[in-house]
Amino acid sequence: MTQSLAKRIPCAVLGATGVVGQRLVARLSRHPWFELAHLCASEKSAGKRYADACEWRLGPERGPAHGGVGDLVVERCDPARVAAPLVFSALDTEPARELEPAFAQAGSFVASNASAFRMASDVPIVIPELNAAHLDLVLEQRRARGWRGAIVCKPNCTTVPVALPLGVLDAAFGVEAVHATSLQAVSGAGWPGVSSLDILGNVVPFIRGEEEKLEQETVKLLGRLGERAILAASFPVSAACHRVPVENGHMVAVSVRLRGAPSVDAVRAALDAWRPSTLEHALPSAPARALVVHSAENRPQPKLDAESHDGMSVHVGRVRRCAVLGIQFSALVHNAERGAAGGNVLYAELARARGLFG
Amino acid sequence: MTQSLAKRIPCAVLGATGVVGQRLVARLSRHPWFELAHLCASEKSAGKRYADACEWRLGPERGPAHGGVGDLVVERCDPARVAAPLVFSALDTEPARELEPAFAQAGSFVASNASAFRMASDVPIVIPELNAAHLDLVLEQRRARGWRGAIVCKPNCTTVPVALPLGVLDAAFGVEAVHATSLQAVSGAGWPGVSSLDILGNVVPFIRGEEEKLEQETVKLLGRLGERAILAASFPVSAACHRVPVENGHMVAVSVRLRGAPSVDAVRAALDAWRPSTLEHALPSAPARALVVHSAENRPQPKLDAESHDGMSVHVGRVRRCAVLGIQFSALVHNAERGAAGGNVLYAELARARGLFG
Amino acid sequence: MTQSLAKRIPCAVLGATGVVGQRLVARLSRHPWFELAHLCASEKSAGKRYADACEWRLGPERGPAHGGVGDLVVERCDPARVAAPLVFSALDTEPARELEPAFAQAGSFVASNASAFRMASDVPIVIPELNAAHLDLVLEQRRARGWRGAIVCKPNCTTVPVALPLGVLDAAFGVEAVHATSLQAVSGAGWPGVSSLDILGNVVPFIRGEEEKLEQETVKLLGRLGERAILAASFPVSAACHRVPVENGHMVAVSVRLRGAPSVDAVRAALDAWRPSTLEHALPSAPARALVVHSAENRPQPKLDAESHDGMSVHVGRVRRCAVLGIQFSALVHNAERGAAGGNVLYAELARARGLFG
Amino acid sequence: MTQSLAKRIPCAVLGATGVVGQRLVARLSRHPWFELAHLCASEKSAGKRYADACEWRLGPERGPAHGGVGDLVVERCDPARVAAPLVFSALDTEPARELEPAFAQAGSFVASNASAFRMASDVPIVIPELNAAHLDLVLEQRRARGWRGAIVCKPNCTTVPVALPLGVLDAAFGVEAVHATSLQAVSGAGWPGVSSLDILGNVVPFIRGEEEKLEQETVKLLGRLGERAILAASFPVSAACHRVPVENGHMVAVSVRLRGAPSVDAVRAALDAWRPSTLEHALPSAPARALVVHSAENRPQPKLDAESHDGMSVHVGRVRRCAVLGIQFSALVHNAERGAAGGNVLYAELARARGLFG
Repeated sequence: MTQSLAKRIPCAVLGATGVVGQRLVARLSRHPWFELAHLCASEKSAGKRYADACEWRLGPERGPAHGGVGDLVVERCDPARVAAPLVFSALDTEPARELEPAFAQAGSFVASNASAFRMASDVPIVIPELNAAHLDLVLEQRRARGWRGAIVCKPNCTTVPVALPLGVLDAAFGVEAVHATSLQAVSGAGWPGVSSLDILGNVVPFIRGEEEKLEQETVKLLGRLGERAILAASFPVSAACHRVPVENGHMVAVSVRLRGAPSVDAVRAALDAWRPSTLEHALPSAPARALVVHSAENRPQPKLDAESHDGMSVHVGRVRRCAVLGIQFSALVHNAERGAAGGNVLYAELARARGLFG
Repeated sequence: MTQSLAKRIPCAVLGATGVVGQRLVARLSRHPWFELAHLCASEKSAGKRYADACEWRLGPERGPAHGGVGDLVVERCDPARVAAPLVFSALDTEPARELEPAFAQAGSFVASNASAFRMASDVPIVIPELNAAHLDLVLEQRRARGWRGAIVCKPNCTTVPVALPLGVLDAAFGVEAVHATSLQAVSGAGWPGVSSLDILGNVVPFIRGEEEKLEQETVKLLGRLGERAILAASFPVSAACHRVPVENGHMVAVSVRLRGAPSVDAVRAALDAWRPSTLEHALPSAPARALVVHSAENRPQPKLDAESHDGMSVHVGRVRRCAVLGIQFSALVHNAERGAAGGNVLYAELARARGLFG
Repeated sequence: MTQSLAKRIPCAVLGATGVVGQRLVARLSRHPWFELAHLCASEKSAGKRYADACEWRLGPERGPAHGGVGDLVVERCDPARVAAPLVFSALDTEPARELEPAFAQAGSFVASNASAFRMASDVPIVIPELNAAHLDLVLEQRRARGWRGAIVCKPNCTTVPVALPLGVLDAAFGVEAVHATSLQAVSGAGWPGVSSLDILGNVVPFIRGEEEKLEQETVKLLGRLGERAILAASFPVSAACHRVPVENGHMVAVSVRLRGAPSVDAVRAALDAWRPSTLEHALPSAPARALVVHSAENRPQPKLDAESHDGMSVHVGRVRRCAVLGIQFSALVHNAERGAAGGNVLYAELARARGLFG
Repeated sequence: MTQSLAKRIPCAVLGATGVVGQRLVARLSRHPWFELAHLCASEKSAGKRYADACEWRLGPERGPAHGGVGDLVVERCDPARVAAPLVFSALDTEPARELEPAFAQAGSFVASNASAFRMASDVPIVIPELNAAHLDLVLEQRRARGWRGAIVCKPNCTTVPVALPLGVLDAAFGVEAVHATSLQAVSGAGWPGVSSLDILGNVVPFIRGEEEKLEQETVKLLGRLGERAILAASFPVSAACHRVPVENGHMVAVSVRLRGAPSVDAVRAALDAWRPSTLEHALPSAPARALVVHSAENRPQPKLDAESHDGMSVHVGRVRRCAVLGIQFSALVHNAERGAAGGNVLYAELARARGLFG
């Protein structure tokens, strides 16, 4: 173990003071493969101790305040000074658009939480257990853009609990159409994010850009790796997104039409039986169960299930008949862990295991 | 006005101490056509002043505490003693199953909030603006059962915001398939109803019996009045129901396939243009707008819209393209008013206007 | 009535797009004495229709969206162009510090919701039923500052439910010491104000500056009008302030030591018997009961009581023995109405009735 | 370790299906000193598998569902059949009044979460770090009652965060008067407990019996062990209790008058420096820090602090001047862990270490 620690790969977190940034710090400050070497943020924070630069907003389930590295000095997001083989980006869309390519060009493998490049044709969005093969698009990206590094994205947090079980069902039966209605937690909007005045005791049936992301990313994730791009899957996806007064945990009610109209039992059996091929890599952040299939009639629930398996599992329950599309189920993910910070760390681990950087 | 007051029809409320009962009392204690003559409840409450028999749980927007009739003495639900032409039932399912027929046999027109008889073939469930014609089934019900009175039901609260706009669209285009995902307020479960420990900061993706009700009642409401029964509409309805930490106001995300695949604009125009034929009766509890069509991208919302028009409007917004079924929209109703107490009073008014009792 | 409408006094709202500004607009757009002539806001909003300049955040209980005056064009807060005898300021502290004196110098009676000048020695803070006499300080203010107009402030929202009953008890017995612990609603912080991520399912035991305000304003409100300033009352006030996940309604647990240690019954009787002398003016926004004394053991409560009497009453309940200070009680106010918008309008009405402007 | 496991003392949980019972099961199913041998509950549950007898209501932070012992068969609370040296009682008051003495008579050391015997003169209520010496009252209890076992109680959950820091201050300075205002989580009322309809977006300023408990238990906890009873401390305690929409974590705003009026710095130093003498026993459930003193101006908070140190710490913050009593501070405890299940386990460990049973 001392040996493996000795070889840890230095990494940086861009946007380390934000909520996703804090979650990345919490995970990376105790990571067996990666060494948290740089905490980067805006001008305002640069030069301060991390503990002074931001108020820690995570509960005790995420470990010590400031990840135990509150004494590290925050740096600017400058690729000329922060030379790390691995860079986690929790930047907002606008700065991400400029800085992520700069880091990639400078040689960093950029694992991005931002949406800036998700739909770029040569940028893969990756859920390791679902579409590990898409990572190879990085080679084409490097070739086409002349980069030594690369940009890889995680999907939008709401896409994760939809795409993963759909991937299993697509492999088993073939997906023909998808209808998804989300009930999303406020942490998905970051901090300060959603005003309490807007959401206490309320539901808001609209989140800007969210339905488009869910519709487009799902077919990209379930698409096929072509020579120079992902060829998106061809089934239609319809999304309706809602914000609800929940702190963590996005629920999605999913209906799906499958080829051959399999029975509810067959669908449940397929979900139950599935195990990801990534298990072979023993990735440090991979949960014991990537997909937890619940049998209780009222599960999954954000409060009872989102944090289980360190927030890294996708939960599915209530697999049942849909009178219109054939099959429906409830899906849940911890939007800020598997759906954001943890999800990023996991595919970075996969990329490392495949030798894509380091 | 003195004249009309002189002619007011005596009515009783069964289950007057519960939450729906309290809302009925609030509406009927100041009603221009009906006179609140009897407050009935269980043995435990009978003989007490209404103000002593129950804790008033409604806010100031529903008028004075105990409807201003806290001095009335609560009676038992005994049809032999409570002889009223009009009876509102806010009973639980089990007592409703026994007591509602007893009152109907004794001559009362029973407007029921319970689900006990909703699916009986000769009992209409009525949203006045949608299926006023179904009220005539009462004549057949009297004939078949030998009753002088009758039982009429309101639909389940979640069905209301789905069925009303669908009725408009069915008339304009023809409905072929419906997918509905609800986000329901806790008041739908009455008091004490949902434990705070279960719902604070949480979503529960299951409400017992709710999905079946929504699926079955929608096609009954949009059905055709046959000789002896309602002939249910034939399109499929798929429902997924969730409880959310909201006090009042059920949201439903609805997707619908319409005959001829009309454009979003055509659908919005049909909803905008619709006016109910019941307007001619000038029913006292009818809202100025039975269907409010919102254009703001983030409306309707429970907190901002449920109470408007005295809680009696159905709200529709976000009419847009659904990639799977063609059209989707968001619908909202005040579940405890239009969806329960107010909805009952409204069709009782319609029945009165049509001379079905009194 | 036509006559009185003909004579209505033109007024302006500064900061009309914020939450308090919206509540002022809701009240003033239908006011019998004042005419809403100018909606003023920052550069960003100036020149836009009011309905385009801000999203309306009030529920139906506050009347139509945008107060029904969504077509008015928003102006800049420029005293050279907006010449109104009466100006309501819902500005933030910093702009208030500059703009309120400018309007006062230009001749406007400025009714301010801001804290900028509350502790100035020649500026009264007024709860009409409590310290109407303090309004006369305006004459000294004009003399000393050479203004034609004036600045008058309302107290901080949390001070209102503490100071009003204390004023009654001070007159009846004499107050010797006060301990106040608040549980404050999120609307007290405006919009966006409190992040949902910070307050959902949580309590924050700190609100910057709030305890100091409560301690200092209470003794100023219960002070005596001297020649050139208010002479603060001399008893100590201890405050502890908390934010809780409630939308509207500040609760305060108050303990008080009274001269002569009167009995609980005597204290309750004094509160019950009290009627404000301002009743003689028949102010349009004055509630039927300025002080509602509850006898139910679990009242007042924000959800059940804050909105009653149009949000303009102070509620007191649970008058009982305090083992340390002698008497304790629970107090409640609608922080955004009586505690902010409505409170401002009410003392402006009093000032008008006393001929201080117009 | 095998050796220590071999010696584990069998224990029973009475009321194992309730919320506190579940938390006891979660702790005891992985306890190094005690062996969870009997799960007892009402007739209704007896004979069922534990997993079938109750719905597990704890999140993943409390370990596996049903404590991993869902296959155990629930027994009736019958002392004739359940002979265990150690019995944890999470019974309601009424059954506790009858069953706890029966188990004590039969020889069990009963660690009770109920309030039935807390104020009995020969029953100690124990917070190990505060009043370990009171445990010796068990010997007098056995003598007087002729029991082989004993009953020991934990204080009410709200008393814990008040009494522990007061104990430190009493030892350092002497307490003269205490004023406590609580903001209590809903889990304190068990399940179903508080109706969501009553508490969502609301504050209830009354919890039956709670203020009396807080006032009486605090002086018993800080009292002196006499020959046959605890001699209560003589200072007055005033309590005002509120329910707030928080799941776990009771906050209390405490003001205290100390002998000699020490400075804020002196008080903070005393709290900071204190370490419990129980540390010597290395009790398995004792937190690293029994009293966490926060320096951040807005801490402690239920969401960020209640679960830390496995929910076993008392948190104190905002130590500052009180204008009336001299010193005030904010205190927080996880009401359902240190305040209930964990607190019970901890003093049972202490009693074991002192050889009071086993």
